[in-house]
Order: sequence, then structure tokens, then C-alpha cells
Amino acid sequence: MLLKNKIDNLKTLLNPENVLTGLEERYCYAEDSTNTRASTGLPDAVVFVESIKDVQRILMYANKNKIPVISRGAGTNMVGACSCPKGGIVLNFSKMNKIIEFNAENMTMKVEPGVVLGDIKKLAETENLFYPPDPSNYKVSTIGGSIAQSSGGAMSFKYGTTKDYILSLKVVLADGSLLHLGAGTIKDAVGYHLNQLIIGSEGTLAIVVEAELKLIPKPESSSVILAYFNSLEETVDGVNKILKSRVFPATIDFMDKNSVKTVEQFYPCGLDTTCEAMLLIELDGFKSSMREQIAKVHKVLEEAGADSITIKTDEQEKEAVWTARRASFAATAKLAPDVVSDDIIVPRNKLAQMVQGCKAICSKYNLDVCLVGHIGDGNIHPQIALDLDNDEEFKKYIQAKSEMYELAVSLGGTISAEHGIGKEKISYIENTVDKEAILYMKKIKKLFDPNNILNPEKIFKL
Amino acid sequence: MLLKNKIDNLKTLLNPENVLTGLEERYCYAEDSTNTRASTGLPDAVVFVESIKDVQRILMYANKNKIPVISRGAGTNMVGACSCPKGGIVLNFSKMNKIIEFNAENMTMKVEPGVVLGDIKKLAETENLFYPPDPSNYKVSTIGGSIAQSSGGAMSFKYGTTKDYILSLKVVLADGSLLHLGAGTIKDAVGYHLNQLIIGSEGTLAIVVEAELKLIPKPESSSVILAYFNSLEETVDGVNKILKSRVFPATIDFMDKNSVKTVEQFYPCGLDTTCEAMLLIELDGFKSSMREQIAKVHKVLEEAGADSITIKTDEQEKEAVWTARRASFAATAKLAPDVVSDDIIVPRNKLAQMVQGCKAICSKYNLDVCLVGHIGDGNIHPQIALDLDNDEEFKKYIQAKSEMYELAVSLGGTISAEHGIGKEKISYIENTVDKEAILYMKKIKKLFDPNNILNPEKIFKL
Repeated sequence: MLLKNKIDNLKTLLNPENVLTGLEERYCYAEDSTNTRASTGLPDAVVFVESIKDVQRILMYANKNKIPVISRGAGTNMVGACSCPKGGIVLNFSKMNKIIEFNAENMTMKVEPGVVLGDIKKLAETENLFYPPDPSNYKVSTIGGSIAQSSGGAMSFKYGTTKDYILSLKVVLADGSLLHLGAGTIKDAVGYHLNQLIIGSEGTLAIVVEAELKLIPKPESSSVILAYFNSLEETVDGVNKILKSRVFPATIDFMDKNSVKTVEQFYPCGLDTTCEAMLLIELDGFKSSMREQIAKVHKVLEEAGADSITIKTDEQEKEAVWTARRASFAATAKLAPDVVSDDIIVPRNKLAQMVQGCKAICSKYNLDVCLVGHIGDGNIHPQIALDLDNDEEFKKYIQAKSEMYELAVSLGGTISAEHGIGKEKISYIENTVDKEAILYMKKIKKLFDPNNILNPEKIFKL
Repeated sequence: MLLKNKIDNLKTLLNPENVLTGLEERYCYAEDSTNTRASTGLPDAVVFVESIKDVQRILMYANKNKIPVISRGAGTNMVGACSCPKGGIVLNFSKMNKIIEFNAENMTMKVEPGVVLGDIKKLAETENLFYPPDPSNYKVSTIGGSIAQSSGGAMSFKYGTTKDYILSLKVVLADGSLLHLGAGTIKDAVGYHLNQLIIGSEGTLAIVVEAELKLIPKPESSSVILAYFNSLEETVDGVNKILKSRVFPATIDFMDKNSVKTVEQFYPCGLDTTCEAMLLIELDGFKSSMREQIAKVHKVLEEAGADSITIKTDEQEKEAVWTARRASFAATAKLAPDVVSDDIIVPRNKLAQMVQGCKAICSKYNLDVCLVGHIGDGNIHPQIALDLDNDEEFKKYIQAKSEMYELAVSLGGTISAEHGIGKEKISYIENTVDKEAILYMKKIKKLFDPNNILNPEKIFKL
């Protein structure tokens, strides 16, 4: 049977209105938020699934006919993990967006994969509960994508990443079988942690169709401290001194001079554009502890040589600071036709070296880079403004990227902290991860998906 | 070659002083702390490994000769995970007990598997850092065993279990190859989480030979609240009310009337033996927040109907309360020739039912049970005092155990929260975990250990 006929047959498997095959419709799914030319590819069909049974039906059919299946939430991925280099069927989860159960007493929430993270957070807060993972795009990105990419965010420093908040998963395998992984209890020591294997596997091992999340009590109060420094070394010293003082901030984020300047240029909000770096520290806990936490952090930041320190306790002021931080990507995007955001992590004691290195590499290739990141974790996001249609600039970018990865690995770090590998970083994984370990990853991939239909050409070359 | 000769050959592979083959020597390793007749078995040799190379040599040899290999830390396991039902070689890690690197700035520690948990905690504290997992036996148990069993402890309620504190692992596979899993950075989204697959796999997939741990800032202060209740429903209501009040205690532990009575009988420490249940709540955080936290918890415990509430802020007083709680196992052991400690978990809103159910089942079979547990997690440890050499009593115990597991599963819980499955619970896993999921666990086992030499007859029957 011709591929076209195979694709047309999808309309017999589920509500035909849920199957898009028109060229214009498919074009909308040829890319995700990745923005580089490597990660494009037109799917043969886009299918809106409405139930677990829908997913099973599609996978059984696709597996039999060896058609690639790419699952997609909000498409906010930045490594081309939702791209379709071999065509195939995009599973669109936007109609599987129900919160199945919110059990405030057990502090758990059962959700479909298409639920937006922001909605989970909001609902939890109605009962003073908290779902901490907060990728910058949490107001639009979905929990399914979060699980696929093992996403983190600013709060990961204190509260961990997605993998720390998944109690159980229902997943559909390539052959259409449904597996329930994990008991859903707060702790679980029964057999292998298969759910942890699925988290971060970028849709290459199984498709998540339901997740049970762990929630925690929402801290009563928070304050934000903005601190400006004249050198990177002082900035990192400030971070270390905070941690030594036994304060455990919810986030320790960072913007370099160029990021601050760029945000002020396009979204003026009163940031100081003269300093080398800005720290954005969020403290949380009891109201009664705020004065002490703020005093301790203030004191050690002064000792580290901070140029100026401001405290924000008012909700609107705090939100404004975070909006500025989150606007850095959009602001950088205004500097050139395109912007690419990367994701590198190193041990915290190598941070100053990594940041200086990124700057030097980008300067060598004449690339405009804004550096932001979760400095508490050692996680840097270099955001590069460029014209991807300019071949010479594109080549420079690829060269710079590769040198930044080499530097990260040489400093004991790695090439992704929270975005994943997807299609973008596929040629770099072999230089980062133990070769024997990759061999076993590939063996596991083959075991779960022998026909390689699940998100092919992602993470590693088979 | 005869098995005896194969075993004698081990002495040519490494320092012969590290190979024990005498009957009396091997008898010392025929059991772990499990204490039931199911989990015994004499190993053919006990090998003290001193390096990764030693482990690789032994595994290559054992794999070639199809000899079982059972790794062992302090042998404190309670599900027969260190037992040798098919004989084989016990790998004793007590000589691989070095702390390789403590990096206070990065808040990480690199350790050999034989390091005692208590030593990790103590060293971390010298820099105001904290390694939270705290199984009751942490003063003797090792990090290798902790990783193998995915162990938790009282602090897991707020701080998670072992799996949340492992940044990277070095493991040796059955064929002797060495794999490095995870980058060692605070976050890592590069490829599959193979380290999470190894954690909790009870030495059946690979042998951990090095681990890099994540540490966090040690909370500045803590207080312990003891509260007594006249009914279980009120006790659970108290727990729920604490969480609703936005206080997030480090631990919410529990002892039932019989546990309190038994501890007071053998280790008198002034506990109130007249109430149905005792809650042991540890609050931590800033000194400045203690008064507020205590006041909030005190208020809601009163509302829940607590009979009496005592606050302990003095270090010695706090330690005395914890010693009493940890003595419950030793005290129960004095009631009869033997004691077995189980490990069940249910969603918190099913806790009262689970506790009542355990009592009813044990009473039906005339078994003396002391119930303790981490009630915040929904995790109950029924400790049963009995004479295991009494056939009739043993049969009753097996029947009671099976009924308690059935009840836990029927309430949405599972048969192990933090002890693992080992040999003891092997016949129950099929009724707890999704059958398709077990199939994939077995496929993964086969992929990592095709000759089934690593801790055979544990977790599931192959």
C-alpha cells in the first residue's frame, strides 16, 4: 500500500475530523519552537487524539505499517524533539487536556498529557498546594512535553525537576500495549523504576497518556532579591556565600550585562544596565522567616561585593522582575531575524569559567549572545541572536555551539540540563555520555520500539 | 571444572586474603537482617573487593562460569535481598568505604559503595550541608545498599528518597564492563535516566561501585512535637490538618499503642502508654520560623482532638524521642524469639483503614503486632513478634502477611515503600505491579544480565 493510502486509512481508525492531512495543515507542524533549519520536516498527518484507546489504535496501526509517530504537546520544545525528519504522524494531545482527579488530601493530581502546566499550578494553589517545576514557558507548555523532556525551570534548584514529581504514568508502547508504571504512592520500592526511564526519553520509548503528580505544601511567603555585580567571579562568590549561610533559596537565577541591556531596550522595566551581572534570588518559606532570610542574603551579597541590592516583597513587583527575566528570550529575538536558546550545565564551581568561555567563543565568531540561566544549578542558557538564513552566520553558530559544548564537557558538565537532546544535539551526545551507556540506551530503545517508529532520529542515531 | 575448583580459582584473581571459603566464614553470610526462614542460603565464597577492577575481575569470571554474585553492604536488608538462595559469591563492600571527594562548594560528595550513611551525613554537616535519606539503620547501613534498595526513611516525607540524591553512578555490569551513568550535574537531560533504572534494582541489573551524591543546605533549626491521640481517625485528621496549614514537616512519624507500650516496657523513656497513637512531628527551618510553625501545628493538633501535645527543642530531648521511635524494632524483638518488620504504603487518605486492617488481620491470627511508620507518606511498618521455628505460627504469619498486602493493594497502595522486594516478597509482586510492566522489567533484566548471575531469585521469578 502506498504511504498516502496508509495515511488516508487513519480516518477509518478514529473520528475523521481528528485527522488532518492537508498540506497547509501539516505545515503548521513542520517545526516546533526550535528555530534552526536542522529541525524541520513535514509530517504526513496530524492526529488529534481524544482517549487512551485512540493512542493505542494509532500506534498499533503505525507499528504494523512502520510509520513514525511524533507526540506533541504545545510544541514549545527547543531541541527539535517534536520535529518530523522522517515524516509520519504527529499525535496532537491538545484535546487530551483534562485534569482527571485532584486529591488535595493525598496531595496528588492525575492528569492527561495535554494539560497546560500553568493550569496544574493554578489548581494546586487553590488548596495551598504546589507543583514546583516551572520551565519559562509554563503558561503554555504541557505536562506531557514536560515529562518527555524531563523539564526543570528556575525552581529546580530547591525543588528538583519533573522526574521528582511523577508518582505514576500510564504509557502506550509502540505496539499499542498499555503499561501502568508506578503505584502512585509517595514512595515505591517495587521492581525497576520504569517510569523514571520513560521520563526524559523524549517520546522515543513510549507515549505518556496519563500521569499522577506529587504536590507539596505551598510555601506561605516569598521575596525576591535583585543584586548587581561588577564581575562574574563576585557573582558566583555571592551564590556560594548564600548557600554557606544555610539559606536555601527557591531560585538563584542570573542575567548577564547583555541580557539586562537587551531586556531594557525592548521591555523597559528599570533594570540597571551598567553592571556585569544580575542575580535574581527568590526566597520562600514562612512569613516569620523572611526578615532573617533577607538579612542573611543581603549581608553575604554585600560581602561578595554586590554593587547594589534591592528587595521586592510586593506581589506585583516580584512578578515584574520575573517577567523581565522571562522576557529575555523574546527581547533577544528582536535583535536579529532569529534567536536560538541553548542549555548547558556545569558544576557550580566552574560557572564563571563557563560564562566567560561562552562570551569568548561567541565574540570570536561575532555572534550576539545574551546569557541567562539558573546559576544555582550551574545551568546557563546562551541565547544567540542571528540570521539563520545567512549561511556564513549559520556556520559560525554551529561552530560556536560545538565549542561551547566541548567546554562544558571539559569542565565536568554536560550539553543539556533541561531541554533534552532531540534532533539538535544528536551529533554531540556521543562526546558527552559514556559510550557503553549509550550502547545500553540503544538496546533499551530496541527493546521498547523494535521498528523504530517512536520519534525516530532523536537523542541518538540508531 | 567442579564448582569447588572454580571457587578456589577466585584466589588467583585477587589478593587471596580477600577470598573466604571456609564453612564457618560463609555461614556468617547465609542471612541478612531479614530473619525469616525463606531468605537463607549459604554462599560458596565471600570476596572482599578493594577496587573497581576487583569487581570487574570477579564479574567477568563469574559470568563466564555462570556463578551467582550477590553484593552486600552492611547486610541490614529486611527482604532477603542479600541472601544466597543459589549459593554463589558474596561481594563484600566493607573495604570499599572511602569518601572519594567532598566538594562543599558544589554541594556534592563522591563515595565508594561501602561508606556508611551516617558517615556521609556527619561529614556533610561539617559544612552545614545535609544528605537527607535516613533509613532507621543509617548509623550502620551503607550507601551501596541504600541505592540498591532505593531506601527512604523518616525524612523522605519532605526530602524524598535515595533516588532524589544520586547525581551519577559508576556501575559494573554482569560481563564486567564499567558504565558511567549521569553527568554528576544537578540537572541532566541527556539521554535515558539509566542511573534511575539501577537505583532500586537490588543488585539484579548492575553492581554500583561509585556514586556521586547531591547535598542540600542543612536547615538551621528543628523542633520535635509529640502528640497523643485516642483514635486513629483523629491521628490521620491531625496529619491532614498540619499539611493544610501550609507547614511542611521534615517528618510525620507514627507509633501505635502497642509500639509505645513495648518501647516503654524495654526502654522506658516516659512515653504515654494509654493512648491509641502517637505522632512524632519534626519541624525544620529557620530559628525565626520555629515559633510560628510550632504554634500552627499545636493549634491544628488540638483541633483534631489530640489528647496531649509536647514540644521538644533541646537537642538531647529530640534525640531521646527519635531513639525511642527507632528502638521499636529492638523492643518488639524482645517480645518473642523473632521479629519481622514489614513495609506497606497506601495513599494517605486510606491510612486509618490500613492500620485498622493490619490490626484486625494480626488479631485474627493471634499475632503480636507493633505498628510504626512514616504516616506522612502513608507508609506503615508492621513489626510482628513471633517464633519462626513454630510451624503453626509461621504459617499464620505468612497468611497474615499475604492478607495485609492484598489490603494495601486494594486500597490503592503497594507492598513496599522503601525496603524492596528481595526474596521475601517475590511471590506477591505479580499481584501488585502491572503484568505488562513486569514483562518489560524482565526483558531489561535479560538485556543487562543474560546469564542471570546478578542476585538471582530476587524481585521476580524469571
